[in-house]
Amino acid sequence: MAGMILKGGPAASAMAEDSAKRAAALREKGIIPSLAILRVGERDDDLAYERGAVKRCEQAGVAVKKAVLPADVSEEVFFDTLKALNEDRSVHGILMFRPLPSHIDGEKARKTLAPEKDVDGCTDGSLAGVFTASGGGFAPCTAQAVIELLDYYGIDPKGKKAVVIGRSLVTGRPAAMLLMHRNATVTICHTKTPSVPEMTRGADIIVSACGCMESIGPEYLRKEGGQVIVDVGISWNEKKQKLCGDVRFDDVLELAAAISPVPGGVGSVTTSVLVKHVVDAAERSL
Amino acid sequence: MAGMILKGGPAASAMAEDSAKRAAALREKGIIPSLAILRVGERDDDLAYERGAVKRCEQAGVAVKKAVLPADVSEEVFFDTLKALNEDRSVHGILMFRPLPSHIDGEKARKTLAPEKDVDGCTDGSLAGVFTASGGGFAPCTAQAVIELLDYYGIDPKGKKAVVIGRSLVTGRPAAMLLMHRNATVTICHTKTPSVPEMTRGADIIVSACGCMESIGPEYLRKEGGQVIVDVGISWNEKKQKLCGDVRFDDVLELAAAISPVPGGVGSVTTSVLVKHVVDAAERSL
Repeated sequence: MAGMILKGGPAASAMAEDSAKRAAALREKGIIPSLAILRVGERDDDLAYERGAVKRCEQAGVAVKKAVLPADVSEEVFFDTLKALNEDRSVHGILMFRPLPSHIDGEKARKTLAPEKDVDGCTDGSLAGVFTASGGGFAPCTAQAVIELLDYYGIDPKGKKAVVIGRSLVTGRPAAMLLMHRNATVTICHTKTPSVPEMTRGADIIVSACGCMESIGPEYLRKEGGQVIVDVGISWNEKKQKLCGDVRFDDVLELAAAISPVPGGVGSVTTSVLVKHVVDAAERSL
Repeated sequence: MAGMILKGGPAASAMAEDSAKRAAALREKGIIPSLAILRVGERDDDLAYERGAVKRCEQAGVAVKKAVLPADVSEEVFFDTLKALNEDRSVHGILMFRPLPSHIDGEKARKTLAPEKDVDGCTDGSLAGVFTASGGGFAPCTAQAVIELLDYYGIDPKGKKAVVIGRSLVTGRPAAMLLMHRNATVTICHTKTPSVPEMTRGADIIVSACGCMESIGPEYLRKEGGQVIVDVGISWNEKKQKLCGDVRFDDVLELAAAISPVPGGVGSVTTSVLVKHVVDAAERSL
């Protein structure tokens, strides 16, 4: 029996519907929840994500304001733009595409972004909130999308062994914390882990966020099967001319209890989390 | 062959010696590194820790300023005192004993403490620094003491499997992050972990910070032995009339490759970390 496929679409739609209701309630109070997109240059990845985000915002009744700067914008103009968005009371959330070009100080940008508008969880305030589970700030959208996907399909991390592959600050590390706050026993694997398959074989839930295309096959799973796999990776496969995840989907489908596809899995939920965070920020601004 | 005993004393002395050198260099520049101790009431635990901290400060040439308030101090006076220490330019670090009495808002106190003086790592800035490994802020002293103890005895966490028992914000969670930053593959166990022994048996390094007196025995270790145990727990054993750790030291000594005793293990290093952090803060203030 092949595993259940954890499609992101239905989870994203359910979230978007809920956000739309809350946005409508805010509009009745005279508040238009608004996202500002701050983008420097025209990177393909950024543009693709932006298109998805704008579409989701439209569906939910969240306004979008774009601040698009040329790739060679001066640092001064960049920071003036960011500060203006910080101060603009009609803007509730700011999506600042990163990494920024090398001539703009990314660490300074992270510290400049107003924490209460940090809807993609990159400021210290948000990251501390993820670490402490204080409820302050916002988790990075991709990490939160992992939890939302599991929730939608009724997979409760409580008491489960979860292994997260990758320790990046945008995905692996925050996803591990969010799983721990949901009472999973979490192990974080990374490039210095001698044998990742040894660790994943013992897991009930495997979250792959290593970004190594099609690197995870059946050798990472236990023979008895029954494991849940969430694939956060997304890479362009030149040979196959399509997007692929970290996991060799077709090779593990039989053995897994459930697996999220790429594309159409975690990635599809990410923009719905972003929209939810903008509505959260607008509600908090009341 | 019994395990090596990871005594805290020598590690603490080595650290204190280094801090003393750096403090002397600061004094030559006209800066007297100074710790303010903010204590409300006369709790035994606080007083014992304070005595140790003051002694270590004296040895290292770090000045101590005590702000001691009665247990029934008003919230207003408490916050005025804290703010005055924040603003006092002769104070580089503030040790704020917690938990505070229930009539004082502990969360507000944590947010009020100046991040650059937060030498025991309780502010969002420090916790974000622990999570991100940005080098900003200060790790909680007890969590850092675990790493210092391992370092002193030449036990490199890199590539090792580490299991941390307990997910508190003062010890378990930050210790797990610090071990991960040192390239261990870390698993965090907690009260919702179905079988902690199952997890610890697979570990190379076990850090117990669960605070359950003498709860960890040989059943938590693998039969082949060779594991390193760091015991962060410290509880008063009424029956034995002495301080005891989480681990039944005598029962596991034969099987362990190395084990830290209680008392005289991690706890002995904690105040040396505190002093180091004060000197760090003074250096950063230059």
